[in-house]
Amino acid sequence: MTNTFRAGIAGATGYTGIELVTWIDRHPQLEIGWITSENSAGKSLADVHAVPWTYPLIPLAEAFARTGDVDVVFLCLPHGESIEAAQRFAASGVRVIDLSADFRLPDPVVYARWYGKTHTAPELLPHFVYGLCEVNRDALRGAQLIANPGCYPTSVNLGLYPLAKAGLLDERVIIDSKSGISGAGRTTKVPYLFVEANENMTPYSVGYRHRHIAEMELVLNGANSHTAHRFTFTPHLLPVNRGILSTMYVSVAPGVTEQQIREIYAATYAGEPFVHVLPAGQFASLRHVTYSNRCAISITPVYPDDANGADYIIVATIDNLVKGASGQAIQCFNIAAGIEETAGLK
Amino acid sequence: MTNTFRAGIAGATGYTGIELVTWIDRHPQLEIGWITSENSAGKSLADVHAVPWTYPLIPLAEAFARTGDVDVVFLCLPHGESIEAAQRFAASGVRVIDLSADFRLPDPVVYARWYGKTHTAPELLPHFVYGLCEVNRDALRGAQLIANPGCYPTSVNLGLYPLAKAGLLDERVIIDSKSGISGAGRTTKVPYLFVEANENMTPYSVGYRHRHIAEMELVLNGANSHTAHRFTFTPHLLPVNRGILSTMYVSVAPGVTEQQIREIYAATYAGEPFVHVLPAGQFASLRHVTYSNRCAISITPVYPDDANGADYIIVATIDNLVKGASGQAIQCFNIAAGIEETAGLK
Amino acid sequence: MTNTFRAGIAGATGYTGIELVTWIDRHPQLEIGWITSENSAGKSLADVHAVPWTYPLIPLAEAFARTGDVDVVFLCLPHGESIEAAQRFAASGVRVIDLSADFRLPDPVVYARWYGKTHTAPELLPHFVYGLCEVNRDALRGAQLIANPGCYPTSVNLGLYPLAKAGLLDERVIIDSKSGISGAGRTTKVPYLFVEANENMTPYSVGYRHRHIAEMELVLNGANSHTAHRFTFTPHLLPVNRGILSTMYVSVAPGVTEQQIREIYAATYAGEPFVHVLPAGQFASLRHVTYSNRCAISITPVYPDDANGADYIIVATIDNLVKGASGQAIQCFNIAAGIEETAGLK
Amino acid sequence: MTNTFRAGIAGATGYTGIELVTWIDRHPQLEIGWITSENSAGKSLADVHAVPWTYPLIPLAEAFARTGDVDVVFLCLPHGESIEAAQRFAASGVRVIDLSADFRLPDPVVYARWYGKTHTAPELLPHFVYGLCEVNRDALRGAQLIANPGCYPTSVNLGLYPLAKAGLLDERVIIDSKSGISGAGRTTKVPYLFVEANENMTPYSVGYRHRHIAEMELVLNGANSHTAHRFTFTPHLLPVNRGILSTMYVSVAPGVTEQQIREIYAATYAGEPFVHVLPAGQFASLRHVTYSNRCAISITPVYPDDANGADYIIVATIDNLVKGASGQAIQCFNIAAGIEETAGLK
Repeated sequence: MTNTFRAGIAGATGYTGIELVTWIDRHPQLEIGWITSENSAGKSLADVHAVPWTYPLIPLAEAFARTGDVDVVFLCLPHGESIEAAQRFAASGVRVIDLSADFRLPDPVVYARWYGKTHTAPELLPHFVYGLCEVNRDALRGAQLIANPGCYPTSVNLGLYPLAKAGLLDERVIIDSKSGISGAGRTTKVPYLFVEANENMTPYSVGYRHRHIAEMELVLNGANSHTAHRFTFTPHLLPVNRGILSTMYVSVAPGVTEQQIREIYAATYAGEPFVHVLPAGQFASLRHVTYSNRCAISITPVYPDDANGADYIIVATIDNLVKGASGQAIQCFNIAAGIEETAGLK
Repeated sequence: MTNTFRAGIAGATGYTGIELVTWIDRHPQLEIGWITSENSAGKSLADVHAVPWTYPLIPLAEAFARTGDVDVVFLCLPHGESIEAAQRFAASGVRVIDLSADFRLPDPVVYARWYGKTHTAPELLPHFVYGLCEVNRDALRGAQLIANPGCYPTSVNLGLYPLAKAGLLDERVIIDSKSGISGAGRTTKVPYLFVEANENMTPYSVGYRHRHIAEMELVLNGANSHTAHRFTFTPHLLPVNRGILSTMYVSVAPGVTEQQIREIYAATYAGEPFVHVLPAGQFASLRHVTYSNRCAISITPVYPDDANGADYIIVATIDNLVKGASGQAIQCFNIAAGIEETAGLK
Repeated sequence: MTNTFRAGIAGATGYTGIELVTWIDRHPQLEIGWITSENSAGKSLADVHAVPWTYPLIPLAEAFARTGDVDVVFLCLPHGESIEAAQRFAASGVRVIDLSADFRLPDPVVYARWYGKTHTAPELLPHFVYGLCEVNRDALRGAQLIANPGCYPTSVNLGLYPLAKAGLLDERVIIDSKSGISGAGRTTKVPYLFVEANENMTPYSVGYRHRHIAEMELVLNGANSHTAHRFTFTPHLLPVNRGILSTMYVSVAPGVTEQQIREIYAATYAGEPFVHVLPAGQFASLRHVTYSNRCAISITPVYPDDANGADYIIVATIDNLVKGASGQAIQCFNIAAGIEETAGLK
Repeated sequence: MTNTFRAGIAGATGYTGIELVTWIDRHPQLEIGWITSENSAGKSLADVHAVPWTYPLIPLAEAFARTGDVDVVFLCLPHGESIEAAQRFAASGVRVIDLSADFRLPDPVVYARWYGKTHTAPELLPHFVYGLCEVNRDALRGAQLIANPGCYPTSVNLGLYPLAKAGLLDERVIIDSKSGISGAGRTTKVPYLFVEANENMTPYSVGYRHRHIAEMELVLNGANSHTAHRFTFTPHLLPVNRGILSTMYVSVAPGVTEQQIREIYAATYAGEPFVHVLPAGQFASLRHVTYSNRCAISITPVYPDDANGADYIIVATIDNLVKGASGQAIQCFNIAAGIEETAGLK
């Protein structure tokens, strides 16, 4: 006999919320308890998205009074708006998985530096586990409070973690990332209009210390204490609905062969159900990962003739709405709840 | 020696405005006098669109005082907002080409029926020439006030005018139209977001008496007094930036052969520089017309084996921003000003 | 305890084959037995598609010798190439679900008329059940041989079946269909190149007696013996990967109200897990159905003010690779094998 | 009075050929003499592309006999097939502009190293001028033989030439380029199918010594003799029809301020009609350049707070079919023929 868990979704009118509902619908042990929406409370989900599910939408305030109806709450609220909700749900003892950026950085000083403001629930920060499953799986088991990673950092961190952990990754890391437009959320701004984004590509926040770098420092500096990496990160708007492709230009310690690097990746990700390291000569594309919880990684030396070539191009791809958001949130839940990690995610 | 004319553009931050600037830049006898924008006055055009032209944007009120600087004003204002501007510019004696729907219907009673309100400048209506160049060329010569046709009706009217004028078009006309998203303007609404429109197609206003039908009645009922057509018109949002494709299901009087119909089209459009009637076996596509002022038309009998087949599928395509808006506006100007009709439009 | 069935896939390098593998991967009671490919035998599936599954690809001849390894064979072969394979597999007693057009028309005379050649296995035709699940569910239970419906006809037949069965559908039916490019298969021809199809729309086979009309006649004429419908069917290439949207212009018997029609649809599709009839005022879009086995249907009178309006616009959408191909094939299998009809399809 | 020149186009069925015809149609001093196509000889251009122009297509052999009909021949032949044609036309004394890669590298030794074969017309190499107009304008005046630059190198070379010429560009240059699919030509291969490329992004030739690097070495090493640059170049297939966006990660000599760098770019490109250096805070996008002959360039320091920051992100965009091919070819012609450089290109 298998248990069934009931999920609450706070904020179901954006793309991560509706994506969660879609995956929960396929999950053999998860079902919807309630769904909130401030703007559309009183309507049904089918009024807001082109879906067949007519779940009623309730205001968040009503959800606070109905924590008994659910085993886990997924917070799909805008960045900054999760803090109070997390406090309320955490206090009720229900499991909380926050898809916003509000609890990803454990150190309030680091948070303040990157976000330019004081965190208003610093007492909760040490209790949140950063939910990069392949890196923090042990800490996730049984965890009550989970901060789901950002989409860009998930692609970068999975792509470089084996090198960083092995102490082989040089200080300088150049990351050229391309993201599908759903990464911007369901935001009605001019750059996200079809006519603006279609048949276009545009870099943005060039040269800016993008907040996602904080998560790269968290994972990759944290993977091995010897190196503080210096990240140059350029995101681009890519005219597709979903997917992130990060092309990473890195150097490794001299004398290490491509074969050794491939073995390190193979060992790090052995048995991982969602990480797919490609053989030599294949390159990670969005097609490898969209509509799945997979991460595809390709490893290519810049100078193929030089067996000890120090420069590599690592390409990592994920679906920003799945492994970069709602899929990873379910994977975190599965681990935390002690059920099959791949349940509902195949 | 050739004259050069100076153009004012009222409202340059939408898609028809910037399209006009692009075509005027190529026109050997047109140059920019001034450009207005209410929201972006004080900025330059390059601040608002990804273009190299740094024309300053001025408020409309300032443009009213600078009619002496221009020979023609193109009104690219939202529907309903052209009326007052047209009155002001018309009074100054400058030529006015209105790209909105405000002056397309000459009869204020018809206007009130379709738009649900009383026209506030009915005295101007009889002075506006409806600028469907291939149909109203003579009236356009020397015209001071021109109402530029709508995009959907331009595709339908050019596609069916030869049949209607010849009195061969049966009463019932079914029009299935597909429009690129720029037809919705630069409107920041959810359905026009990239992620919503991309990889999607959706009909809209189904079964609704769309205002564009008024222009079809104007031209096609007007082409021949014997028939009042009954239009069923279903528009669809098509995930491309530009282009309208109208697939039209019509019946013609029995006993007329396909060859006779082709001859009627050939005669009607003989010498037309922008109408391209395709040979049998070819079908009009967006590719035939995008980024050009052309209209492509294909004519296909439903029952190819029946030489006298009464049912036909007429497909007509245009670029909604060119022949459906700014290109036709320039064509109107060229005719009205007495210069080469194709100037700047090749 | 649940049974697990093993599936053979004949022809896995096209889009329907790889789509089947993807859905089988999620199915709790199906697993891959073998996969064939003539062109890529000896390679693995991951060499041919951007997927993580490294199933070896074997030649069809080898599969004929391994029918004992599988419970069901899905034929994803090109039209015309299924006949011999179906004969071989049928003779072995294994269940066969043919995704090609080869066994859809039960009458060899009708087949010869539409396909212009004599069927080479007419003895099998009466044994194949046409797998439109919502219409032929009873016949599918326990069936050994199943002909999976075509994608265009599935959208049309599900959209009009309730009206036809009730005897309300008038003779003349005009169908304007738009299909994503995957409908053309993985065919390396110029019109299917990205640069040709993107930012384009083109009708094709206009006025042609498209073979898919045969399946419409089969189902809709068959639904009620009183009417032989006259179909005008215009397909268009739509620049999306997946999805068919059919806009259908029909007339119903006078005196029937919109409410009565809605009740007929509701009754016909009561309890159907994959048919989603939209409420008044909503219109079926691709977004309602892509990446799912659903069919969305909207019903709109042409003259909304006329409660007895005889003209209706029915819009039906499906994902051509799911409900239009591989998803429906699995649904057929589930019914035939007597397991949960929605297994693996949510 | 203005002269009119007649152009021959060898190879008009690919994308650069048809693009040339489109621009020549707008050019006030160019008209079509003849057009060749080996595969479609005997047909008209309108049979092969969705265009209204019915120019007859003749075989190349016939064109060799008709050099008297033209003033200039544009070679739009596949790489490798231009050599013999160039010899034949060059011998006739007509002006030749070759859009292939065959004559871009002046040194046959360098050619052999990159192309892996011996050049079969080495005697012609020194007579070809490399047609990067902004760099080689003086050499282009009056030139009879012109090698039109490649699309990727044009974006890179225009983006970095000012730095390289000033001797400020460090050795290591990392280039992450994204190209619209028309860059692959009208090639019927699986990766260029709509369904494969759409909603996808894929790097290709990663870590490979792409031949286009030879043109970067030619221009950027050639700009200043002190530095031999080391290029890491990763091209990606971008799901748009047209456009190249190159994101370049470079270091400049320490102590140089952003302001000084901006002044160098401004001075280098002062008066250039087609190079558009964006102000600080704006980033070059495809939208800045598609369907035009422009190149947009943005300059951003990696560490904005450090006035002397040594690391920069230079983004350069062009339309690969215009400034990256046919537009630049016309610009070359205009310079060579001594007419207005922008004629037909606005």
